[in-house]
Amino acid sequence: MKKIPVAMQEVIDNFERLPGIGPKSAQRLAFYLLSVPETVTDDMGEAIKNLKKKIKICRECFGVGEDELCEICSDSSRDRKIICVVERADEVMAIEAVGNFKGVYHVLGGVINPLEHIGPEDLKIKELIKRIEVGGVEEVILATNPTIEGEGTALYIKKKLEESDFKGKISRIGSGLPMGAELGFADQVTLSRAFEGRREMNV
Amino acid sequence: MKKIPVAMQEVIDNFERLPGIGPKSAQRLAFYLLSVPETVTDDMGEAIKNLKKKIKICRECFGVGEDELCEICSDSSRDRKIICVVERADEVMAIEAVGNFKGVYHVLGGVINPLEHIGPEDLKIKELIKRIEVGGVEEVILATNPTIEGEGTALYIKKKLEESDFKGKISRIGSGLPMGAELGFADQVTLSRAFEGRREMNV
Repeated sequence: MKKIPVAMQEVIDNFERLPGIGPKSAQRLAFYLLSVPETVTDDMGEAIKNLKKKIKICRECFGVGEDELCEICSDSSRDRKIICVVERADEVMAIEAVGNFKGVYHVLGGVINPLEHIGPEDLKIKELIKRIEVGGVEEVILATNPTIEGEGTALYIKKKLEESDFKGKISRIGSGLPMGAELGFADQVTLSRAFEGRREMNV
Repeated sequence: MKKIPVAMQEVIDNFERLPGIGPKSAQRLAFYLLSVPETVTDDMGEAIKNLKKKIKICRECFGVGEDELCEICSDSSRDRKIICVVERADEVMAIEAVGNFKGVYHVLGGVINPLEHIGPEDLKIKELIKRIEVGGVEEVILATNPTIEGEGTALYIKKKLEESDFKGKISRIGSGLPMGAELGFADQVTLSRAFEGRREMNV
């Protein structure tokens, strides 16, 4: 016996496709939308329909933007001598939210993960090497996540850069205890990284 | 510095309006949608836009349907002598999913909650009394949730029914330990309810 109206079921099915949203949450969200004014559902539906039409992948850094070249790559005040390599486009936004980094980015589109059949050729690594071969780059910051796959991908890119004729600096983002953490609760790898990455204090 | 493209920010803002979805989840969902084929975002946007246009509130039970009268209220095989009173329309679906109940429903649209300024007049209680006054109803099952507000609302409706000329049975859904629960972990109210609601075993 199916008593959920079709129009409702369609919304539920669509929400269920989203990561982290199960059948119960999807139903709750659909019922919530029933309770809001129609302008809200109209706006939301329109925004979702427009998303893939309006967003373009930047041909330089493979981040997201509304043009062929994203806002960062087309900004002449950014320092093209430093490239920060990240896994995904949302990480660009996380770094931009801090606002300290003035260089440009390169979005790999993932990490090397043999278990999920993702090899180096599935990522934008060749494109990174190509960008660097054009010249002018002085530092590549490898900012893949400090996970097994992220570390492996960083090592792979480091090797590829060394094999190329890149003569600049290759760096890796700092690893250690996050702000607010407690030594007693940190895992061993994090603790050992925190010691390896210690810096002299200059008061 | 704002580097999130407008079309993306619009989707993020819309997701953030949904209950239980914070800024980080909203961003993650928007980036997920970037990775799916455009037909998926088209379908999803269309389904959300159609929701409030196609779904109607049933004029009899105040549940959801695609017509003036919902599928249950317009089903002649349902037993109109038993009305099950619930708080919200999604609870109708939960009960329908079990498939045992053959009566009809009445959706209150919430519970009496003085802290949130929701009084009896904000709920469909008058409409319930009116339905019963037409006659033919033999039992009203009060299936509001076993919370403080749900219990209070059930008591209020019971009083109103007794004040009316309703001569049928007024019952309350069973309360006690849920399946799979353990006595040792149950709270005191649930345990005492489980004892009050004990039934003779007929093997």
